[in-house]
Amino acid sequence: MSPMRGSATITEEWRHLRVERADGVTTVTLDRPDRLNALTFGAYADLRDLLPELAQDGRTRVLVLGGEGRGFCSGGDVDEIIGATLAMGAGELLEFNRMTGQVVRALRECPFPVIAAVHGVAAGAGAVLALACDFRIVERSARFAFLFTKVGLAGADMGAAYLLPRVVGLGHATRLLMLGEPVYAAEAERIGLVSELADDGQAATASAALARRLADGPALAYRQTKALLTAELDMPLGAAVEMDAAAQALLMTSADYAEFHAAFTGKRPPKWEGR
Amino acid sequence: MSPMRGSATITEEWRHLRVERADGVTTVTLDRPDRLNALTFGAYADLRDLLPELAQDGRTRVLVLGGEGRGFCSGGDVDEIIGATLAMGAGELLEFNRMTGQVVRALRECPFPVIAAVHGVAAGAGAVLALACDFRIVERSARFAFLFTKVGLAGADMGAAYLLPRVVGLGHATRLLMLGEPVYAAEAERIGLVSELADDGQAATASAALARRLADGPALAYRQTKALLTAELDMPLGAAVEMDAAAQALLMTSADYAEFHAAFTGKRPPKWEGR
Amino acid sequence: MSPMRGSATITEEWRHLRVERADGVTTVTLDRPDRLNALTFGAYADLRDLLPELAQDGRTRVLVLGGEGRGFCSGGDVDEIIGATLAMGAGELLEFNRMTGQVVRALRECPFPVIAAVHGVAAGAGAVLALACDFRIVERSARFAFLFTKVGLAGADMGAAYLLPRVVGLGHATRLLMLGEPVYAAEAERIGLVSELADDGQAATASAALARRLADGPALAYRQTKALLTAELDMPLGAAVEMDAAAQALLMTSADYAEFHAAFTGKRPPKWEGR
Repeated sequence: MSPMRGSATITEEWRHLRVERADGVTTVTLDRPDRLNALTFGAYADLRDLLPELAQDGRTRVLVLGGEGRGFCSGGDVDEIIGATLAMGAGELLEFNRMTGQVVRALRECPFPVIAAVHGVAAGAGAVLALACDFRIVERSARFAFLFTKVGLAGADMGAAYLLPRVVGLGHATRLLMLGEPVYAAEAERIGLVSELADDGQAATASAALARRLADGPALAYRQTKALLTAELDMPLGAAVEMDAAAQALLMTSADYAEFHAAFTGKRPPKWEGR
Repeated sequence: MSPMRGSATITEEWRHLRVERADGVTTVTLDRPDRLNALTFGAYADLRDLLPELAQDGRTRVLVLGGEGRGFCSGGDVDEIIGATLAMGAGELLEFNRMTGQVVRALRECPFPVIAAVHGVAAGAGAVLALACDFRIVERSARFAFLFTKVGLAGADMGAAYLLPRVVGLGHATRLLMLGEPVYAAEAERIGLVSELADDGQAATASAALARRLADGPALAYRQTKALLTAELDMPLGAAVEMDAAAQALLMTSADYAEFHAAFTGKRPPKWEGR
Repeated sequence: MSPMRGSATITEEWRHLRVERADGVTTVTLDRPDRLNALTFGAYADLRDLLPELAQDGRTRVLVLGGEGRGFCSGGDVDEIIGATLAMGAGELLEFNRMTGQVVRALRECPFPVIAAVHGVAAGAGAVLALACDFRIVERSARFAFLFTKVGLAGADMGAAYLLPRVVGLGHATRLLMLGEPVYAAEAERIGLVSELADDGQAATASAALARRLADGPALAYRQTKALLTAELDMPLGAAVEMDAAAQALLMTSADYAEFHAAFTGKRPPKWEGR
C-alpha cells in the first residue's frame, strides 16, 4: 500500500466487475455474458472508482480489460442506460455523461499500462473503452463499432472524438464516428487501431503474456512512458522536450537504470525492480 | 429558415458556383470545366459566403462538393489568381489569403457534414478543399497534388499544414506538402486520405448515396459529431471529455434519441427527425 | 553570411561529427563506425550547436544526416553516456537531458529541410534523431528501435512521446515506445515512418538526390513549409489558417513566385533563386 494513502477505505467487493489479481497483473472482466457485457450504471461507476484505487494499492503493474462470453462489450445497456436516461433531467444526464468520461480519463491517466483483450464485438462505449487502453490485442474475427449516431447520439462520446483522430487520423475517425459502421479486425489493423492481432480465442492468452512481460519489466519506465504519451498529446514541442528532460533525468537516478548498466557490463539479463 | 436569422438578405444567385438543392442535400459544383475548375476570386468568395448562409437557411443537412468535367479542381487559376496577385500590395495579398483560409474554416465549422466527390485532379487549393471536407469519395484514377512549392509558395496554404498531418501523419504530410508531387488514389487510400474509393465515373453517384443516407439520418447527431471532431483536435483530453459530456447530455434530450429507443423496443426502424 | 550575424564566432572544426558542404547541401555524418556511431556527449553538443550555426551561415539549403559504416546510429553510448550519467547529480542529469532535447528542437526548428539517410540500425537516440528529421530515406534492411525502456528509461526521450504519435498515431507509438522492439523497414513504411524506401546500400545516394532537388528548388518556400508544419502541430485551426495567410502573402512578394509565373507564361522551366 502506498504511503500516499489517506483515510479512504479500500473497496472490499466490486459488485459490477470481476477483478482478479496475480503477481502484479490485475485482470478486470466485464461479466454480464448474457447481455454481451452491456454496461450498467454500476459497471461505469466501478470502472471509474477502481482505477484510481488500483493506483494507490501498489500491487498493480499492469491491467488487462476483457469481457466474459461471446464478446468484449456491446456498450451501454439499451434497457438500463438508454431507457433510464430518457427519464432523466439535465443535471442527471450531465452527471451520467461525466461519469462515463471519467472512466476514459482514468484509463488514460492511471499509472500503469492497460491492455484491452478484444474478442467478438466492441461496440459503442465498449469500443471507446478499448480505444482508451494503451494496447489493443484483437482477435481476427473481432470488430469495433462506434455506433453512437445509430442511436441518435453524437459520435463524440467519452472522448472518442479526441482519441480516435489521434489513433487513426482525422479522415478515418470522421468516417467511423459519423457512420457508426462496424470495423473488422483487418481494417482496424490497417488503420492503426490494433496493437497486436490474435487468433480467435487467443486474445486473453496473448494479453496475459504481454501483461506478464510488462509486469516483470521496468515498471517505473513503463509508467513514465504512458504518462508522457498521454500528457504530450496536449503539449507543444518545446514544453514536451523540457518535460522529457526532467522525467528522464529522474529515471536516470532509478534503481532499474543502474541495474541495466550493471547487467550489461556483467553480461547477464537485468533484474527489474520497477523503481 | 432559422429564427436565428437577422436582417441579412439571402443571396439570390451564386454566380461563381453551381448550387443545387434537393431534399436536405445541397450540391455545390465547381463549374469551369474548360479550365479544370480553376478557382477565381469570385469562386473563393462565393464558397466563403455560401457555407455560413446554408447554415442559416435550415434546408441543408449535408453538402456535396464536386467538379464539372474532367476533374475536381486544378487549384487557383494561373492567370486570374497568380497573375493578379503579382500586382497586389501587402494589404490585398493578406486579404486574398485570409479569404481562401476562411473557406477552409467554413468547411470545417459548418454545421453539416461535407462530402468531396473527387475525380480526376484535385490540385493546389483544390486538394486543400477536398482535405477540409469530412468525407472524400475518390475515384480510382483520381489524384491529389499539394503543388504549392512548385509555384514558389509554401505548402502551408489555407490550413494544409494544420490539416494534413492530422489526417495522414506528419511524415507523409511533410513529403506531400514539401515536394508537391501527385498522390494517386491507391496511395491516398493507404495513408488515410480517402474515405471511400469509387470506380471511375462513380464519385458523384457514390457521394449522392452517402449524402442521401446522411440527410435521412439523425442530423443533429451528425452535426454534433462533426463539431466535436473539429473542436477536439484543438483541445486537451480533460476538456474534450467534459465537452463530450455536456454535448451528449443535450442529445439525450433530443427527439431522435427517444425515437431510437421507441423504435428499438417496438422492433421497427427509427424515423429520424434530425432534432 | 547572414547580416543577422553578431559577434559570435563560427566554429572552425566540428570534432565529433563529419560535416561536408557542397553547393547548398550540408551533409552531417555520425562517424564512429567502430561503435555503430554511438552518440557521445561531444556528438550531442555538436549537433545542438551546429544546426543554429548553419542557419546563420546562409550556405545550407538542405541538410542530410547519415551514419558511417554498418548503421545509422546505435543511440547513446553505453559506456560514455549511461556509465557517466550514473555518477551524475540532479543538476547534471537535467543538463544532459536538456541538451539532447535541444538537438531535436534544433532539427524541427532549423530553417531548412533535413533528410535522414537510414541504413542498418537507428536505435534509441538514433531513432529519435531520424524521427525528428523531415524526410526518412530508409533502406529495406534497416530497422528502428525506440529501446529506452530496455535500459530502464522512459520511452519519452528527446520529444519522442510528442513526435511519434504525430507521425504514426497514438496506438503504434505506444507500442513502439513502451516495448522498445525493433521496427523493420517494411512495418515502418506501413505505419508512416518512412518517406522513401531505398534498396540496400542506396540510402546515401537517394538522400543526395533528394537533397540536390531541394537545394535547387524554391528554398524560401521549402523553409516556410517546414516552419509552418512544425508550428501548426501546436496551433488551433483558426490560428493556423491566419498564420498561413500572412506567410503566404509574404511569399507572394518573393522572387520565386514571380519567377514561376514568368516561366509558366514563357513556357520554360523556372530558375529558382530561393528567395
